[in-house]
Amino acid sequence: MNLHHMIDLDRLSVEEIMELIGLANSIRSNPWAYRESCRGKIMATLFYEPSTRTKMSFQTAMFRLGGEVVGFDNPGNTSVSKGESLKDTVTVVSGYADLVVIRHPKEGAAAAASLYSRSPVINAGDGGHLHPTQTLTDLVTLYNEKGRLDHLCIGLCGDLIYGRTVHSLIRAMIRFPGNSFVLISTPELALPQYVKDAMDAAGCRWKEVASLEEALPELDVLYMTRIQQERFSSPEQYRRQKGVYILDEKKLARAKADLRVLHPLPRVDEIATEVDEDPRAAYFRQTVYGMYARMALILTILQNRETWAGQEPEPAVYPCRCSNPACITHSEPYLPHRYTRSGDELTCWYCDEHTPAPASGR
Amino acid sequence: MNLHHMIDLDRLSVEEIMELIGLANSIRSNPWAYRESCRGKIMATLFYEPSTRTKMSFQTAMFRLGGEVVGFDNPGNTSVSKGESLKDTVTVVSGYADLVVIRHPKEGAAAAASLYSRSPVINAGDGGHLHPTQTLTDLVTLYNEKGRLDHLCIGLCGDLIYGRTVHSLIRAMIRFPGNSFVLISTPELALPQYVKDAMDAAGCRWKEVASLEEALPELDVLYMTRIQQERFSSPEQYRRQKGVYILDEKKLARAKADLRVLHPLPRVDEIATEVDEDPRAAYFRQTVYGMYARMALILTILQNRETWAGQEPEPAVYPCRCSNPACITHSEPYLPHRYTRSGDELTCWYCDEHTPAPASGR
Amino acid sequence: MNLHHMIDLDRLSVEEIMELIGLANSIRSNPWAYRESCRGKIMATLFYEPSTRTKMSFQTAMFRLGGEVVGFDNPGNTSVSKGESLKDTVTVVSGYADLVVIRHPKEGAAAAASLYSRSPVINAGDGGHLHPTQTLTDLVTLYNEKGRLDHLCIGLCGDLIYGRTVHSLIRAMIRFPGNSFVLISTPELALPQYVKDAMDAAGCRWKEVASLEEALPELDVLYMTRIQQERFSSPEQYRRQKGVYILDEKKLARAKADLRVLHPLPRVDEIATEVDEDPRAAYFRQTVYGMYARMALILTILQNRETWAGQEPEPAVYPCRCSNPACITHSEPYLPHRYTRSGDELTCWYCDEHTPAPASGR
Repeated sequence: MNLHHMIDLDRLSVEEIMELIGLANSIRSNPWAYRESCRGKIMATLFYEPSTRTKMSFQTAMFRLGGEVVGFDNPGNTSVSKGESLKDTVTVVSGYADLVVIRHPKEGAAAAASLYSRSPVINAGDGGHLHPTQTLTDLVTLYNEKGRLDHLCIGLCGDLIYGRTVHSLIRAMIRFPGNSFVLISTPELALPQYVKDAMDAAGCRWKEVASLEEALPELDVLYMTRIQQERFSSPEQYRRQKGVYILDEKKLARAKADLRVLHPLPRVDEIATEVDEDPRAAYFRQTVYGMYARMALILTILQNRETWAGQEPEPAVYPCRCSNPACITHSEPYLPHRYTRSGDELTCWYCDEHTPAPASGR
Repeated sequence: MNLHHMIDLDRLSVEEIMELIGLANSIRSNPWAYRESCRGKIMATLFYEPSTRTKMSFQTAMFRLGGEVVGFDNPGNTSVSKGESLKDTVTVVSGYADLVVIRHPKEGAAAAASLYSRSPVINAGDGGHLHPTQTLTDLVTLYNEKGRLDHLCIGLCGDLIYGRTVHSLIRAMIRFPGNSFVLISTPELALPQYVKDAMDAAGCRWKEVASLEEALPELDVLYMTRIQQERFSSPEQYRRQKGVYILDEKKLARAKADLRVLHPLPRVDEIATEVDEDPRAAYFRQTVYGMYARMALILTILQNRETWAGQEPEPAVYPCRCSNPACITHSEPYLPHRYTRSGDELTCWYCDEHTPAPASGR
Repeated sequence: MNLHHMIDLDRLSVEEIMELIGLANSIRSNPWAYRESCRGKIMATLFYEPSTRTKMSFQTAMFRLGGEVVGFDNPGNTSVSKGESLKDTVTVVSGYADLVVIRHPKEGAAAAASLYSRSPVINAGDGGHLHPTQTLTDLVTLYNEKGRLDHLCIGLCGDLIYGRTVHSLIRAMIRFPGNSFVLISTPELALPQYVKDAMDAAGCRWKEVASLEEALPELDVLYMTRIQQERFSSPEQYRRQKGVYILDEKKLARAKADLRVLHPLPRVDEIATEVDEDPRAAYFRQTVYGMYARMALILTILQNRETWAGQEPEPAVYPCRCSNPACITHSEPYLPHRYTRSGDELTCWYCDEHTPAPASGR
């Protein structure tokens, strides 16, 4: 597999994804065989915003392969706070480390880092944009818990409008045949139209429902997410509706015996703790699958490193700014304005936002 | 030794304690023989309050056994700050790591963690309750510096009312024959009655004295602790009394030639720096013994891990709340209210506080 | 080489420096041969002020030698915040670790640490005083990029009055024959007289110029540093002058083809990003040389550790206080007041500040 960076899971073919899942399962069934695979290798974790859970998963993955980890998770303590650019930090750190894992609050930051890095880059979350190793975790979990990634009826419950893990999972699962989706949320938190368009384009069935209880009986998979209180239209709405989206044993009684419940964690109260003992609750096992998924990814990328020449091919530069105010190009002004063009529309190479092409063409 | 968790040193038999001390000394005399003993193993350090010293001792111990360490020491940077329960954090992290070391400001937190952990748990301090690896450190120090753990006259000086290390050390030393205790403190900081009762029950001689100088000549061991200024009844009392509890060379001149001075560190000014050069000052050597004590503990627990089936036997649940407001059961409401019963009295399984049994029995 | 601590690069002979550079290059050309050299060894990083860049360089160096790292970089989270002295922290930590790397805001702190450490000490920056591993990095860079350390015309640009890296580099380079210096700064930021005296004493040519552009054509090396805005006499001065000290491609057009540009990093805007692509820009390669320089230093010191008896010979104690208010002796009052005497002048053993000798002699 010709994998050098992991910025966006969509850039991998279905075959490449299945190869990663297969490797994750090989490691899982025989971890001892891999415990020296990355001996002498160093991974840098550049966490521009804290995410202890994701960081510990990456660290553990690297340690279980025999490698070491350096990094920071508190930009206030770093050169960044002296005004250093993302470019300089990534250039320097990628000279120390064999692999760079970056988490950043700005959209497109991982793609930007890959332009300057002297080592492969893994995106560990770039703002509300992408979090490909979470989605890879979800796929490894589904494959193991359900035995397949196709012909599944998948319920997605909670905050569907802002939840990047939900969008990424849908975009991954529509590539496998026969999957259908049940979208369970308030109207205010409904899935964005462009994700619905993607399901339609792939020929997938989907429907929107307002009640978790009603949706449960037909589901093979239930993907739960947090609804933050401030996302409801009023405190009154929150009090009235929140119970509708809480999973408990009473609601689970109506579900299939082989349902599997996933959650990207941390949860607050959207799954009652009584559910934890139910064999259908897969969310704690999911975190362990995530560790193996990251081991497979790290190992694959580091094995390719020997043959990697550096820079990836780059898309064209246009003289216009990305229309997404959260895009990394606004806070790091030296970045070239790269886009892919489709008719009159430009897609930002960093954050995937659409922008009209300038009248004069390129 | 059938050791899976280390929550409370009192749960170990004297034979098991001596076995740990013996292993610590084996490692100390031949550290190189153990440097690959935990290769491929991962320890998680969950520090819900900072304690750099304790954390560095655990980390060094694990590294010197060939293992790796993940963890956090700043809950503000973690999922905890998003409202995650102790249960969820421990469940997830124990899925990554082979061993969990927890430090928490609430009493009973380590016992609570052991209910949900998928890996063995070591208590690195739970509020004012227990700190068993400090006591194990003290025992390894005494055994090596004095050649025995019995028939010692042990002075304890400073804050005896709140000092958990003092209470734990007494509870450990009364299990060895012939030890006696000299309690050196102000009346406000005197040892609690229940610890005195424990000494009496074990048939140990003890006395209370007000002056360190007066106590020194008869001591085999002097265990110093900090007295925080705010513990005195008034600033005036502090100024008048503090010198009484400061160890200096002048006072030491009256002590036995083979006295040993211990201190859990950090010190502030209760031991003058001039004492550091005195061969009787054992407190810096004590920190090195602590590293070997923790190596012995980690190694023993990880060797037992292979045969460990998970959950420990659990005591009964009663429908009443623990009377200790600092108990972990108050901040983590899903915890079952477990107690051991003795007559009309319940003892909290988490924090060891006594609560009257409800009238109706179980 | 009889190297136990690395407090000040000046304490090494030219031959010893060349030996370290040679080892750094050996490691660089064959890193795999060294990846187990420090297996089982532990380095402690005591960072009393944050410096992520320097810490990551040290950590990576130790990991690439097969060793492990413990430490802290946030004194607010440590025993230090409970009032512990530098002496106690260093004594304890050096009992855990085989090597102590210290960074501290006070001048002379690394020398003070070496008095109490049970392991060798490396100075990773002590206030505005010394930063010997940065200078060693600069020397490894120059040796590799220029092929020699002698007969170079070296420009130094920016903040020459406070820049400790500039002073250290000059003091190192005047020990090699035939080097000359061009000092490029505003009058307010000119090099201190005592550094000029050192150049004169070594018989080195030097001159001061006000313009980078004018100086560039004759330089073999350009060492850039940040000028902080607040160092200008007025905001107006800053606006008027700052462009004069910014390196860009236009200015570089006048420079030699084999010029090399160094910078200790992080930069802010004193080098335009367009320069990064120029092969003469050596500052990113410099950080990688720094990793190999630190590997060579760590390896050399740890190999000497076996034969090290502990305490170094100590200079005399005088009954007077150091005149430098930033000296570590003022914040750690137990430190003996050590000086070397030359005629009527005492030089502080910790911070190198000069103080008149007391009239009564020693």
